[in-house]
Amino acid sequence: MHVAIPLYPRFTALDAVGPYTVLAFAPGWTVTFVAAVPGPVIDDKASLAITATASFADLPRPDMILVPGGPGTQAATGDQQLLSWIRAAHEHTRWTTSVCSGSFVLGAAGVLAGRKATSHWGWAEQLPAVGAEHVKERVVFDGKIVTAAGISSGIDMALTFLAEAQDEETARTVQLAIEYDPQPPFNAGNPHTAPAFRREAALNLIF
Amino acid sequence: MHVAIPLYPRFTALDAVGPYTVLAFAPGWTVTFVAAVPGPVIDDKASLAITATASFADLPRPDMILVPGGPGTQAATGDQQLLSWIRAAHEHTRWTTSVCSGSFVLGAAGVLAGRKATSHWGWAEQLPAVGAEHVKERVVFDGKIVTAAGISSGIDMALTFLAEAQDEETARTVQLAIEYDPQPPFNAGNPHTAPAFRREAALNLIF
Repeated sequence: MHVAIPLYPRFTALDAVGPYTVLAFAPGWTVTFVAAVPGPVIDDKASLAITATASFADLPRPDMILVPGGPGTQAATGDQQLLSWIRAAHEHTRWTTSVCSGSFVLGAAGVLAGRKATSHWGWAEQLPAVGAEHVKERVVFDGKIVTAAGISSGIDMALTFLAEAQDEETARTVQLAIEYDPQPPFNAGNPHTAPAFRREAALNLIF
Repeated sequence: MHVAIPLYPRFTALDAVGPYTVLAFAPGWTVTFVAAVPGPVIDDKASLAITATASFADLPRPDMILVPGGPGTQAATGDQQLLSWIRAAHEHTRWTTSVCSGSFVLGAAGVLAGRKATSHWGWAEQLPAVGAEHVKERVVFDGKIVTAAGISSGIDMALTFLAEAQDEETARTVQLAIEYDPQPPFNAGNPHTAPAFRREAALNLIF
């Protein structure tokens, strides 16, 4: 399975690298970072750059695409080169996926019309604006389209997805390899139980 | 707080990018990827490159160092340039940290002698070889030295650490921003409850 992760300026690093690590560990899976022009693409904090090793033209028909989110989404939803590549690739993908606000890039490409989807809690309620129905779950499957909630949820998505696309034993083995037995120090990651003041502070950290 | 993450060939991406994302989201924190020579450094699956934007000489006294692990650790523990930088930086750091087999790089630099530490479950029992006492916990604090278990545990370490180094409210706010409310699809990430055949298969995915 060949996975393409398109990068654009101001993507959020963990959105891409969480699922990247899961999928790159799976036997027989290959992941390629792509962009309009190969080269380093800088993240939302301007302190990390991942190299895109292929152009969109180099990889028109990946088996799977995985669109990360980040504050750069806003510009990315108007990037016709990116959107055209997604639209054309989606025609042939086995899976079309996103993490966080990456679902809005899928939406801008027109592939979420009438589909169930999710996104980061700060923006998920705006999904109907791109034709999608918002489902309040961490990972949402609708046919070959899989979307994940905010940032760290891409890890859960990739493992859930790997069990579906490959087999459960492979997913369990990768989970063990990356020692994903999460022990967050606080019960603070759920937006529905978070106090309003912290929700506001958290959104301010993103931009 | 200025955090330096040294990169070396065949590091594991999530080891670095999990805690990077947590710390880069914290207000007032800056993270810089460093290497012997600035430029892209390629990961363990040869499909991701992160750019080191500074050389070791450029950043001799960061407030904190965070050493990722990966199969490249074996070569890194013999890389005198890297070890000298760690040794000298550690003299002045407020925090010296690692994820996964990165603890063996700290050990090779001589900074774990007599210290409690942890590492990826596949290698943690070898910690006494570098003078450390292995503690079977996901995140281990010993004075200013903080070590984490395998790969994904760097996220838990960074949040736990952020609460200690900054304050709990900041850590909770970052946790909410990255929507870290983990929902792994399986209960398969704990090596102590995993069957032997899967432990063996998981180790085979790493190299």
